[in-house]
Amino acid sequence: MATSGKKWFEKSRQIKGVLLDITGVLYNSGHVPTPIPGSIEAVKRLKAEGIPLRFCTNETQTTRAELVKKLCKLGFELEANEVFPPAPAMCHILRQRSLRPHLLVHPALLPDFQEIDQSDPNCVVLGDAADVFSYENLNKAFQVLISLEKPVLFSMGGGKYYKENDSLVLDVGCYMKALEFATGVKGEICGKPDANFFNGALADMFVRPEDAIMIGDDIVNDVGGAQACGMMGLQVRTGKFRPSDENHPTVTPDGYVDNLAEAVDLFLANRQK
Amino acid sequence: MATSGKKWFEKSRQIKGVLLDITGVLYNSGHVPTPIPGSIEAVKRLKAEGIPLRFCTNETQTTRAELVKKLCKLGFELEANEVFPPAPAMCHILRQRSLRPHLLVHPALLPDFQEIDQSDPNCVVLGDAADVFSYENLNKAFQVLISLEKPVLFSMGGGKYYKENDSLVLDVGCYMKALEFATGVKGEICGKPDANFFNGALADMFVRPEDAIMIGDDIVNDVGGAQACGMMGLQVRTGKFRPSDENHPTVTPDGYVDNLAEAVDLFLANRQK
Repeated sequence: MATSGKKWFEKSRQIKGVLLDITGVLYNSGHVPTPIPGSIEAVKRLKAEGIPLRFCTNETQTTRAELVKKLCKLGFELEANEVFPPAPAMCHILRQRSLRPHLLVHPALLPDFQEIDQSDPNCVVLGDAADVFSYENLNKAFQVLISLEKPVLFSMGGGKYYKENDSLVLDVGCYMKALEFATGVKGEICGKPDANFFNGALADMFVRPEDAIMIGDDIVNDVGGAQACGMMGLQVRTGKFRPSDENHPTVTPDGYVDNLAEAVDLFLANRQK
Repeated sequence: MATSGKKWFEKSRQIKGVLLDITGVLYNSGHVPTPIPGSIEAVKRLKAEGIPLRFCTNETQTTRAELVKKLCKLGFELEANEVFPPAPAMCHILRQRSLRPHLLVHPALLPDFQEIDQSDPNCVVLGDAADVFSYENLNKAFQVLISLEKPVLFSMGGGKYYKENDSLVLDVGCYMKALEFATGVKGEICGKPDANFFNGALADMFVRPEDAIMIGDDIVNDVGGAQACGMMGLQVRTGKFRPSDENHPTVTPDGYVDNLAEAVDLFLANRQK
Protein backbone atom coordinates (compact mmCIF):
# COMPACT_ATOMS: atom_id res chain seq x y z
CA MET A 1 0.00 0.00 0.00
CA ALA A 2 1.33 3.45 -0.84
CA THR A 3 2.38 5.47 2.17
CA SER A 4 -0.07 8.35 1.67
CA GLY A 5 -2.53 6.65 3.99
CA LYS A 6 -5.26 7.11 1.41
CA LYS A 7 -7.21 4.10 0.28
CA TRP A 8 -6.90 3.13 -3.38
CA PHE A 9 -10.41 4.33 -4.24
CA GLU A 10 -9.61 7.73 -2.78
CA LYS A 11 -6.40 7.93 -4.80
CA SER A 12 -8.22 6.75 -7.93
CA ARG A 13 -10.53 9.78 -8.13
CA GLN A 14 -8.63 11.36 -11.02
CA ILE A 15 -8.28 8.10 -12.97
CA LYS A 16 -9.18 8.57 -16.66
CA GLY A 17 -8.74 5.07 -18.04
CA VAL A 18 -8.99 1.48 -16.87
CA LEU A 19 -7.08 -1.60 -17.99
CA LEU A 20 -8.61 -4.96 -17.16
CA ASP A 21 -7.02 -8.37 -17.23
CA ILE A 22 -9.36 -11.01 -18.68
CA THR A 23 -8.74 -14.53 -17.35
CA GLY A 24 -9.29 -14.73 -13.61
CA VAL A 25 -10.90 -11.26 -13.58
CA LEU A 26 -13.74 -11.47 -16.10
CA TYR A 27 -14.06 -15.25 -16.15
CA ASN A 28 -12.47 -18.49 -15.02
CA SER A 29 -11.02 -20.62 -17.80
CA GLY A 30 -11.41 -24.36 -18.09
CA HIS A 31 -13.54 -26.94 -19.84
CA VAL A 32 -16.56 -24.79 -19.05
CA PRO A 33 -15.55 -21.11 -19.02
CA THR A 34 -17.53 -19.34 -16.32
CA PRO A 35 -18.03 -15.59 -15.80
CA ILE A 36 -16.91 -14.45 -12.35
CA PRO A 37 -20.06 -13.22 -10.56
CA GLY A 38 -20.63 -9.49 -11.04
CA SER A 39 -18.00 -9.08 -13.76
CA ILE A 40 -20.37 -8.84 -16.73
CA GLU A 41 -22.29 -6.10 -14.94
CA ALA A 42 -19.09 -4.36 -13.81
CA VAL A 43 -17.83 -4.01 -17.40
CA LYS A 44 -21.25 -2.73 -18.45
CA ARG A 45 -21.23 -0.09 -15.68
CA LEU A 46 -17.75 1.20 -16.59
CA LYS A 47 -18.85 1.55 -20.20
CA ALA A 48 -22.13 3.21 -19.24
CA GLU A 49 -20.13 5.79 -17.27
CA GLY A 50 -18.06 6.47 -20.40
CA ILE A 51 -14.78 5.39 -18.76
CA PRO A 52 -12.15 4.52 -21.40
CA LEU A 53 -11.49 0.82 -21.00
CA ARG A 54 -9.10 -1.69 -22.57
CA PHE A 55 -8.63 -5.40 -21.93
CA CYS A 56 -4.99 -6.23 -21.48
CA THR A 57 -4.44 -9.98 -21.50
CA ASN A 58 -1.63 -12.50 -21.86
CA GLU A 59 -4.07 -14.97 -23.44
CA THR A 60 -2.30 -16.93 -26.18
CA GLN A 61 -4.33 -20.12 -26.32
CA THR A 62 -6.64 -18.65 -28.91
CA THR A 63 -6.78 -15.88 -31.50
CA ARG A 64 -8.04 -12.44 -30.55
CA ALA A 65 -11.12 -13.01 -32.70
CA GLU A 66 -12.00 -16.28 -30.97
CA LEU A 67 -11.32 -14.81 -27.53
CA VAL A 68 -13.71 -11.93 -28.18
CA LYS A 69 -16.32 -14.32 -29.57
CA LYS A 70 -16.04 -16.48 -26.43
CA LEU A 71 -16.36 -13.50 -24.08
CA CYS A 72 -19.37 -12.11 -25.94
CA LYS A 73 -21.00 -15.52 -25.76
CA LEU A 74 -20.44 -15.47 -21.99
CA GLY A 75 -22.34 -12.15 -21.90
CA PHE A 76 -19.53 -9.56 -21.87
CA GLU A 77 -19.90 -6.38 -23.90
CA LEU A 78 -16.59 -5.84 -25.65
CA GLU A 79 -15.15 -5.48 -29.13
CA ALA A 80 -12.01 -6.82 -30.76
CA ASN A 81 -10.31 -3.42 -30.93
CA GLU A 82 -10.62 -3.04 -27.16
CA VAL A 83 -8.72 -6.29 -26.53
CA PHE A 84 -4.92 -6.33 -26.36
CA PRO A 85 -3.44 -9.84 -26.37
CA PRO A 86 0.26 -10.54 -27.11
CA ALA A 87 -0.03 -12.13 -30.58
CA PRO A 88 -0.80 -8.98 -32.62
CA ALA A 89 1.94 -7.08 -30.75
CA MET A 90 4.33 -9.98 -31.35
CA CYS A 91 3.60 -9.97 -35.09
CA HIS A 92 4.33 -6.24 -35.15
CA ILE A 93 7.73 -6.78 -33.50
CA LEU A 94 8.61 -9.65 -35.84
CA ARG A 95 7.87 -7.52 -38.91
CA GLN A 96 9.71 -4.53 -37.50
CA ARG A 97 12.85 -6.55 -36.79
CA SER A 98 12.62 -8.80 -39.88
CA LEU A 99 12.46 -11.93 -37.74
CA ARG A 100 11.08 -15.28 -38.86
CA PRO A 101 9.80 -17.25 -35.86
CA HIS A 102 9.94 -20.87 -34.91
CA LEU A 103 6.60 -20.94 -33.08
CA LEU A 104 6.04 -23.02 -29.97
CA VAL A 105 2.45 -21.97 -29.37
CA HIS A 106 -1.01 -23.39 -28.93
CA PRO A 107 -2.36 -24.67 -32.26
CA ALA A 108 -5.46 -22.50 -31.83
CA LEU A 109 -3.26 -19.38 -31.91
CA LEU A 110 -1.64 -20.14 -35.28
CA PRO A 111 -4.13 -18.15 -37.40
CA ASP A 112 -2.87 -14.95 -35.74
CA PHE A 113 0.57 -15.71 -37.28
CA GLN A 114 -0.56 -16.85 -40.71
CA GLU A 115 0.83 -13.80 -42.47
CA ILE A 116 4.24 -14.10 -40.80
CA ASP A 117 7.08 -15.75 -42.73
CA GLN A 118 8.11 -18.80 -40.70
CA SER A 119 10.65 -20.25 -43.13
CA ASP A 120 14.28 -20.70 -42.06
CA PRO A 121 13.58 -19.38 -38.54
CA ASN A 122 15.93 -16.89 -36.91
CA CYS A 123 14.13 -16.62 -33.56
CA VAL A 124 11.89 -18.61 -31.24
CA VAL A 125 8.47 -17.42 -30.05
CA LEU A 126 6.81 -19.10 -27.08
CA GLY A 127 3.13 -18.86 -26.17
CA ASP A 128 1.04 -20.61 -23.57
CA ALA A 129 1.26 -23.88 -25.50
CA ALA A 130 -0.10 -26.04 -22.64
CA ASP A 131 -0.10 -29.72 -23.72
CA VAL A 132 2.01 -28.78 -26.74
CA PHE A 133 4.88 -28.15 -24.27
CA SER A 134 6.16 -31.68 -24.78
CA TYR A 135 9.80 -32.66 -24.29
CA GLU A 136 10.06 -33.13 -28.04
CA ASN A 137 8.69 -29.69 -28.86
CA LEU A 138 10.76 -27.93 -26.22
CA ASN A 139 13.85 -29.68 -27.63
CA LYS A 140 12.99 -28.42 -31.12
CA ALA A 141 12.81 -24.83 -29.87
CA PHE A 142 16.08 -25.35 -27.96
CA GLN A 143 17.80 -26.74 -31.04
CA VAL A 144 16.68 -23.79 -33.18
CA LEU A 145 18.07 -21.37 -30.59
CA ILE A 146 21.48 -23.03 -30.25
CA SER A 147 21.82 -23.27 -34.04
CA LEU A 148 21.54 -19.48 -34.41
CA GLU A 149 24.55 -17.21 -34.40
CA LYS A 150 22.47 -14.48 -32.72
CA PRO A 151 19.74 -16.38 -30.90
CA VAL A 152 16.57 -14.42 -30.09
CA LEU A 153 13.91 -15.77 -27.73
CA PHE A 154 10.48 -14.21 -27.22
CA SER A 155 7.87 -15.20 -24.69
CA MET A 156 4.31 -13.98 -25.08
CA GLY A 157 3.90 -13.18 -21.40
CA GLY A 158 6.13 -14.02 -18.47
CA GLY A 159 3.59 -15.61 -16.12
CA LYS A 160 4.39 -18.33 -13.60
CA TYR A 161 0.99 -20.05 -13.48
CA TYR A 162 -2.70 -19.49 -13.95
CA LYS A 163 -5.93 -21.08 -12.82
CA GLU A 164 -7.72 -23.59 -15.01
CA ASN A 165 -10.47 -25.99 -13.99
CA ASP A 166 -9.89 -25.05 -10.33
CA SER A 167 -6.21 -26.00 -10.48
CA LEU A 168 -3.15 -23.83 -10.88
CA VAL A 169 -1.20 -24.82 -14.00
CA LEU A 170 2.15 -23.71 -15.38
CA ASP A 171 2.29 -20.65 -17.62
CA VAL A 172 4.64 -19.80 -20.47
CA GLY A 173 7.14 -17.95 -18.25
CA CYS A 174 8.31 -21.26 -16.78
CA TYR A 175 9.21 -22.57 -20.23
CA MET A 176 10.97 -19.33 -21.07
CA LYS A 177 13.09 -19.82 -17.94
CA ALA A 178 13.88 -23.42 -18.95
CA LEU A 179 15.12 -22.28 -22.37
CA GLU A 180 16.97 -19.31 -20.90
CA PHE A 181 18.83 -21.68 -18.60
CA ALA A 182 19.59 -24.17 -21.38
CA THR A 183 20.84 -21.59 -23.88
CA GLY A 184 22.09 -18.63 -21.85
CA VAL A 185 19.83 -16.40 -23.99
CA LYS A 186 17.74 -13.80 -22.15
CA GLY A 187 14.12 -14.00 -23.26
CA GLU A 188 12.25 -10.87 -24.34
CA ILE A 189 8.69 -10.68 -23.06
CA CYS A 190 5.92 -9.53 -25.37
CA GLY A 191 2.90 -9.18 -23.11
CA LYS A 192 2.49 -8.25 -19.48
CA PRO A 193 4.58 -7.20 -17.53
CA ASP A 194 6.47 -5.56 -20.40
CA ALA A 195 6.03 -1.78 -20.31
CA ASN A 196 5.73 -1.48 -24.10
CA PHE A 197 2.77 -3.80 -23.99
CA PHE A 198 0.90 -1.81 -21.33
CA ASN A 199 1.82 1.46 -23.04
CA GLY A 200 0.32 0.23 -26.32
CA ALA A 201 -3.07 -0.23 -24.65
CA LEU A 202 -2.80 3.11 -22.83
CA ALA A 203 -1.85 4.99 -26.00
CA ASP A 204 -4.87 3.50 -27.73
CA MET A 205 -7.15 5.33 -25.28
CA PHE A 206 -4.95 8.47 -25.07
CA VAL A 207 -4.50 8.04 -21.33
CA ARG A 208 -1.21 8.62 -19.49
CA PRO A 209 0.04 5.92 -17.09
CA GLU A 210 -0.41 8.19 -14.06
CA ASP A 211 -4.08 8.58 -15.00
CA ALA A 212 -4.72 4.85 -15.38
CA ILE A 213 -5.43 1.83 -13.19
CA MET A 214 -4.82 -1.82 -13.99
CA ILE A 215 -6.98 -4.46 -12.35
CA GLY A 216 -5.70 -8.04 -12.45
CA ASP A 217 -5.27 -11.28 -10.56
CA ASP A 218 -1.52 -11.66 -11.20
CA ILE A 219 0.46 -9.87 -8.51
CA VAL A 220 3.66 -9.71 -10.56
CA ASN A 221 2.54 -9.40 -14.18
CA ASP A 222 -0.64 -7.33 -13.75
CA VAL A 223 -0.09 -5.34 -10.58
CA GLY A 224 3.70 -5.06 -10.43
CA GLY A 225 3.97 -4.52 -14.18
CA ALA A 226 1.38 -1.74 -14.18
CA GLN A 227 2.98 -0.01 -11.19
CA ALA A 228 6.39 -0.15 -12.87
CA CYS A 229 4.79 1.77 -15.76
CA GLY A 230 3.48 4.45 -13.42
CA MET A 231 -0.12 3.17 -13.20
CA MET A 232 -2.06 2.19 -10.13
CA GLY A 233 -2.31 -1.57 -9.73
CA LEU A 234 -5.19 -3.35 -8.01
CA GLN A 235 -5.32 -7.07 -7.24
CA VAL A 236 -8.57 -9.02 -7.27
CA ARG A 237 -8.97 -12.02 -4.98
CA THR A 238 -10.23 -14.17 -7.87
CA GLY A 239 -8.49 -16.27 -10.51
CA LYS A 240 -4.92 -17.18 -9.59
CA PHE A 241 -4.94 -15.02 -6.45
CA ARG A 242 -3.43 -16.83 -3.46
CA PRO A 243 -3.56 -15.55 0.14
CA SER A 244 0.26 -15.49 0.19
CA ASP A 245 0.11 -12.75 -2.49
CA GLU A 246 -0.86 -10.35 0.29
CA ASN A 247 2.67 -10.69 1.67
CA HIS A 248 4.44 -10.64 -1.67
CA PRO A 249 8.17 -9.94 -1.28
CA THR A 250 8.47 -7.40 -4.09
CA VAL A 251 5.01 -6.13 -5.11
CA THR A 252 2.60 -4.15 -2.92
CA PRO A 253 -0.62 -3.42 -4.81
CA ASP A 254 -2.34 -0.09 -4.38
CA GLY A 255 -5.25 -2.12 -3.10
CA TYR A 256 -7.01 -5.47 -2.91
CA VAL A 257 -10.63 -6.16 -3.79
CA ASP A 258 -12.60 -9.37 -3.57
CA ASN A 259 -13.49 -9.21 -7.25
CA LEU A 260 -13.97 -6.88 -10.20
CA ALA A 261 -17.51 -6.00 -9.08
CA GLU A 262 -16.20 -4.62 -5.78
CA ALA A 263 -13.45 -2.71 -7.60
CA VAL A 264 -15.94 -1.04 -9.93
CA ASP A 265 -18.38 -0.30 -7.08
CA LEU A 266 -15.71 1.48 -5.05
CA PHE A 267 -14.15 3.19 -8.06
CA LEU A 268 -17.43 4.59 -9.37
CA ALA A 269 -18.74 5.55 -5.92
CA ASN A 270 -15.61 7.62 -5.24
CA ARG A 271 -15.05 9.05 -8.68
CA GLN A 272 -14.59 12.77 -9.20
CA LYS A 273 -17.33 13.94 -11.50
CA MET B 1 43.77 -22.32 -17.38
CA ALA B 2 45.49 -21.89 -14.04
CA THR B 3 48.10 -19.17 -13.99
CA SER B 4 51.06 -21.39 -13.09
CA GLY B 5 51.97 -21.72 -16.77
CA LYS B 6 52.20 -25.47 -16.35
CA LYS B 7 50.14 -27.70 -18.59
CA TRP B 8 47.49 -29.83 -16.91
CA PHE B 9 49.44 -33.08 -17.39
CA GLU B 10 52.45 -31.53 -15.66
CA LYS B 11 50.25 -30.39 -12.77
CA SER B 12 48.57 -33.80 -12.61
CA ARG B 13 51.76 -35.71 -11.71
CA GLN B 14 50.78 -36.16 -8.07
CA ILE B 15 47.17 -37.15 -8.84
CA LYS B 16 46.10 -40.22 -6.84
CA GLY B 17 42.56 -40.78 -8.07
CA VAL B 18 40.48 -40.21 -11.20
CA LEU B 19 36.77 -39.47 -11.56
CA LEU B 20 35.25 -40.09 -14.97
CA ASP B 21 31.95 -38.92 -16.34
CA ILE B 22 30.20 -41.63 -18.36
CA THR B 23 27.89 -40.29 -21.08
CA GLY B 24 29.82 -38.28 -23.68
CA VAL B 25 33.15 -39.49 -22.25
CA LEU B 26 32.94 -43.28 -22.34
CA TYR B 27 30.15 -43.57 -24.89
CA ASN B 28 27.58 -41.61 -26.85
CA SER B 29 23.98 -42.30 -25.89
CA GLY B 30 21.13 -42.76 -28.33
CA HIS B 31 19.18 -45.52 -30.05
CA VAL B 32 22.48 -47.33 -30.61
CA PRO B 33 24.87 -46.53 -27.74
CA THR B 34 28.39 -46.29 -29.17
CA PRO B 35 31.71 -46.34 -27.30
CA ILE B 36 33.82 -43.25 -28.02
CA PRO B 37 36.94 -44.49 -29.84
CA GLY B 38 39.79 -45.24 -27.44
CA SER B 39 37.67 -45.01 -24.28
CA ILE B 40 37.38 -48.75 -23.57
CA GLU B 41 41.16 -49.05 -23.81
CA ALA B 42 41.71 -45.88 -21.75
CA VAL B 43 39.70 -47.25 -18.80
CA LYS B 44 41.60 -50.53 -19.09
CA ARG B 45 44.96 -48.73 -18.98
CA LEU B 46 44.06 -46.67 -15.88
CA LYS B 47 43.01 -49.86 -14.12
CA ALA B 48 46.13 -51.73 -15.24
CA GLU B 49 48.23 -48.95 -13.72
CA GLY B 50 46.37 -49.37 -10.44
CA ILE B 51 44.94 -45.84 -10.45
CA PRO B 52 41.91 -45.54 -8.17
CA LEU B 53 38.98 -44.76 -10.46
CA ARG B 54 35.31 -43.98 -9.97
CA PHE B 55 32.58 -43.21 -12.48
CA CYS B 56 30.65 -40.13 -11.47
CA THR B 57 27.54 -39.72 -13.61
CA ASN B 58 24.27 -37.81 -13.61
CA GLU B 59 22.62 -40.68 -15.50
CA THR B 60 19.04 -41.10 -14.28
CA GLN B 61 17.37 -42.71 -17.27
CA THR B 62 18.17 -46.16 -15.96
CA THR B 63 19.08 -47.95 -12.73
CA ARG B 64 22.70 -48.31 -11.70
CA ALA B 65 22.50 -52.06 -12.36
CA GLU B 66 21.20 -51.58 -15.91
CA LEU B 67 23.74 -48.86 -16.63
CA VAL B 68 26.63 -51.09 -15.57
CA LYS B 69 25.20 -53.97 -17.62
CA LYS B 70 24.98 -51.72 -20.69
CA LEU B 71 28.54 -50.45 -20.31
CA CYS B 72 29.94 -53.96 -19.82
CA LYS B 73 28.10 -55.07 -22.94
CA LEU B 74 29.76 -52.21 -24.82
CA GLY B 75 33.14 -53.59 -23.69
CA PHE B 76 33.96 -51.45 -20.64
CA GLU B 77 35.54 -53.07 -17.60
CA LEU B 78 33.73 -51.69 -14.57
CA GLU B 79 31.69 -52.83 -11.60
CA ALA B 80 28.56 -51.49 -9.94
CA ASN B 81 30.38 -50.33 -6.81
CA GLU B 82 32.65 -48.11 -8.91
CA VAL B 83 29.67 -46.27 -10.43
CA PHE B 84 28.12 -43.25 -8.65
CA PRO B 85 24.81 -42.12 -10.16
CA PRO B 86 22.38 -39.78 -8.35
CA ALA B 87 19.58 -42.23 -7.49
CA PRO B 88 21.31 -44.16 -4.65
CA ALA B 89 22.56 -40.88 -3.16
CA MET B 90 19.04 -39.42 -3.50
CA CYS B 91 17.50 -42.40 -1.67
CA HIS B 92 20.03 -41.91 1.12
CA ILE B 93 19.02 -38.23 1.50
CA LEU B 94 15.30 -39.05 1.44
CA ARG B 95 15.73 -41.61 4.23
CA GLN B 96 17.96 -39.31 6.25
CA ARG B 97 15.46 -36.44 6.10
CA SER B 98 12.30 -38.61 6.33
CA LEU B 99 11.05 -37.33 2.99
CA ARG B 100 8.50 -39.08 0.80
CA PRO B 101 9.01 -38.11 -2.84
CA HIS B 102 6.64 -37.37 -5.66
CA LEU B 103 8.87 -38.73 -8.43
CA LEU B 104 9.06 -37.13 -11.85
CA VAL B 105 11.65 -39.49 -13.30
CA HIS B 106 12.20 -41.84 -16.21
CA PRO B 107 10.14 -45.03 -15.76
CA ALA B 108 13.29 -47.14 -16.14
CA LEU B 109 14.72 -45.52 -12.99
CA LEU B 110 11.80 -46.45 -10.74
CA PRO B 111 13.31 -49.74 -9.45
CA ASP B 112 16.05 -47.72 -7.73
CA PHE B 113 13.30 -46.09 -5.62
CA GLN B 114 11.21 -49.16 -4.92
CA GLU B 115 12.09 -49.25 -1.22
CA ILE B 116 11.26 -45.57 -0.70
CA ASP B 117 7.88 -44.64 0.75
CA GLN B 118 6.12 -42.53 -1.87
CA SER B 119 2.77 -42.14 -0.12
CA ASP B 120 1.46 -38.67 0.76
CA PRO B 121 4.49 -36.93 -0.78
CA ASN B 122 6.24 -34.10 1.05
CA CYS B 123 8.84 -33.32 -1.62
CA VAL B 124 9.39 -33.52 -5.37
CA VAL B 125 12.30 -35.37 -6.98
CA LEU B 126 13.17 -34.71 -10.63
CA GLY B 127 15.33 -36.92 -12.82
CA ASP B 128 16.13 -36.84 -16.49
CA ALA B 129 12.60 -37.92 -17.38
CA ALA B 130 12.93 -37.06 -21.10
CA ASP B 131 9.59 -37.74 -22.87
CA VAL B 132 7.93 -38.09 -19.46
CA PHE B 133 8.45 -34.30 -19.04
CA SER B 134 4.98 -33.62 -20.41
CA TYR B 135 2.97 -30.52 -19.51
CA GLU B 136 0.65 -32.74 -17.50
CA ASN B 137 3.44 -34.35 -15.48
CA LEU B 138 5.23 -31.07 -14.85
CA ASN B 139 1.93 -29.61 -13.63
CA LYS B 140 1.50 -32.53 -11.22
CA ALA B 141 4.94 -31.88 -9.72
CA PHE B 142 4.14 -28.15 -9.54
CA GLN B 143 0.83 -28.82 -7.78
CA VAL B 144 2.49 -31.07 -5.20
CA LEU B 145 5.04 -28.36 -4.44
CA ILE B 146 2.54 -25.52 -4.02
CA SER B 147 0.35 -27.71 -1.80
CA LEU B 148 3.18 -28.18 0.71
CA GLU B 149 3.68 -25.90 3.66
CA LYS B 150 7.45 -26.41 3.42
CA PRO B 151 8.03 -27.31 -0.21
CA VAL B 152 11.23 -29.23 -1.00
CA LEU B 153 12.46 -29.73 -4.56
CA PHE B 154 15.31 -32.03 -5.56
CA SER B 155 16.87 -32.38 -8.96
CA MET B 156 19.10 -35.35 -9.71
CA GLY B 157 21.69 -33.31 -11.57
CA GLY B 158 21.60 -29.71 -12.69
CA GLY B 159 22.60 -30.11 -16.34
CA LYS B 160 21.42 -27.86 -19.14
CA TYR B 161 21.59 -30.35 -22.02
CA TYR B 162 23.32 -33.48 -23.23
CA LYS B 163 24.00 -35.19 -26.52
CA GLU B 164 21.74 -37.96 -27.76
CA ASN B 165 21.54 -39.38 -31.26
CA ASP B 166 23.83 -36.60 -32.49
CA SER B 167 21.52 -33.85 -31.19
CA LEU B 168 21.70 -31.80 -28.03
CA VAL B 169 18.61 -32.32 -25.88
CA LEU B 170 17.39 -30.68 -22.69
CA ASP B 171 18.54 -32.03 -19.35
CA VAL B 172 16.81 -32.09 -15.98
CA GLY B 173 18.30 -28.77 -14.84
CA CYS B 174 16.00 -26.90 -17.24
CA TYR B 175 12.93 -28.41 -15.64
CA MET B 176 14.26 -27.65 -12.18
CA LYS B 177 14.57 -24.00 -13.26
CA ALA B 178 10.99 -24.02 -14.60
CA LEU B 179 9.65 -25.30 -11.27
CA GLU B 180 11.89 -22.95 -9.28
CA PHE B 181 10.44 -20.02 -11.22
CA ALA B 182 6.85 -21.21 -10.83
CA THR B 183 7.07 -21.89 -7.10
CA GLY B 184 9.82 -19.64 -5.75
CA VAL B 185 11.38 -22.77 -4.20
CA LYS B 186 15.15 -23.19 -4.64
CA GLY B 187 15.94 -26.68 -5.90
CA GLU B 188 18.57 -28.83 -4.20
CA ILE B 189 20.80 -30.73 -6.59
CA CYS B 190 21.69 -34.34 -5.89
CA GLY B 191 24.33 -35.19 -8.47
CA LYS B 192 26.99 -33.15 -10.20
CA PRO B 193 27.89 -30.29 -9.62
CA ASP B 194 26.95 -30.72 -5.95
CA ALA B 195 30.07 -31.00 -3.78
CA ASN B 196 28.57 -33.69 -1.53
CA PHE B 197 28.06 -35.86 -4.57
CA PHE B 198 31.67 -35.56 -5.76
CA ASN B 199 32.95 -35.99 -2.22
CA GLY B 200 31.04 -39.26 -1.83
CA ALA B 201 32.90 -40.75 -4.79
CA LEU B 202 36.24 -39.38 -3.58
CA ALA B 203 35.73 -40.71 -0.05
CA ASP B 204 34.99 -44.13 -1.50
CA MET B 205 38.53 -44.28 -2.89
CA PHE B 206 40.12 -42.47 0.09
CA VAL B 207 41.45 -39.69 -2.12
CA ARG B 208 41.40 -36.00 -1.19
CA PRO B 209 40.01 -33.49 -3.71
CA GLU B 210 43.41 -31.86 -4.25
CA ASP B 211 44.78 -35.27 -5.27
CA ALA B 212 42.01 -35.99 -7.77
CA ILE B 213 41.09 -35.10 -11.32
CA MET B 214 37.63 -35.15 -12.91
CA ILE B 215 37.31 -35.74 -16.64
CA GLY B 216 34.01 -34.81 -18.24
CA ASP B 217 32.27 -33.25 -21.22
CA ASP B 218 30.11 -30.80 -19.22
CA ILE B 219 31.98 -27.56 -18.64
CA VAL B 220 29.78 -26.47 -15.75
CA ASN B 221 28.70 -29.64 -13.99
CA ASP B 222 31.80 -31.81 -14.50
CA VAL B 223 34.65 -29.34 -14.78
CA GLY B 224 33.38 -26.37 -12.82
CA GLY B 225 31.81 -28.60 -10.15
CA ALA B 226 35.03 -30.56 -9.64
CA GLN B 227 37.16 -27.42 -9.49
CA ALA B 228 34.81 -25.91 -6.91
CA CYS B 229 35.52 -29.01 -4.77
CA GLY B 230 39.27 -28.49 -5.07
CA MET B 231 39.90 -31.08 -7.80
CA MET B 232 41.45 -30.56 -11.20
CA GLY B 233 38.88 -30.49 -13.99
CA LEU B 234 39.56 -31.54 -17.54
CA GLN B 235 37.14 -31.14 -20.46
CA VAL B 236 37.00 -33.62 -23.33
CA ARG B 237 35.99 -32.44 -26.79
CA THR B 238 33.45 -35.28 -27.10
CA GLY B 239 29.83 -35.66 -26.06
CA LYS B 240 28.10 -32.35 -25.41
CA PHE B 241 31.32 -30.33 -25.86
CA ARG B 242 30.77 -27.23 -28.00
CA PRO B 243 33.57 -25.00 -29.32
CA SER B 244 32.05 -22.07 -27.43
CA ASP B 245 32.88 -23.93 -24.17
CA GLU B 246 36.50 -22.86 -24.71
CA ASN B 247 35.43 -19.27 -23.99
CA HIS B 248 33.09 -20.09 -21.13
CA PRO B 249 32.27 -16.99 -19.05
CA THR B 250 32.71 -18.60 -15.63
CA VAL B 251 34.61 -21.89 -15.94
CA THR B 252 38.20 -22.32 -17.15
CA PRO B 253 39.15 -25.99 -17.18
CA ASP B 254 42.65 -27.03 -16.13
CA GLY B 255 42.93 -28.39 -19.65
CA TYR B 256 41.19 -29.61 -22.77
CA VAL B 257 41.75 -32.94 -24.52
CA ASP B 258 40.23 -34.28 -27.70
CA ASN B 259 38.89 -37.35 -25.91
CA LEU B 260 39.42 -39.64 -22.92
CA ALA B 261 42.14 -41.60 -24.75
CA GLU B 262 44.25 -38.46 -25.14
CA ALA B 263 43.68 -37.55 -21.49
CA VAL B 264 44.86 -40.96 -20.30
CA ASP B 265 47.84 -40.98 -22.69
CA LEU B 266 49.08 -37.62 -21.39
CA PHE B 267 48.26 -38.39 -17.78
CA LEU B 268 50.06 -41.73 -17.74
CA ALA B 269 53.03 -40.49 -19.77
CA ASN B 270 53.64 -37.65 -17.30
CA ARG B 271 52.80 -39.47 -14.10
CA GLN B 272 55.21 -39.47 -11.18
CA LYS B 273 56.09 -43.06 -10.44
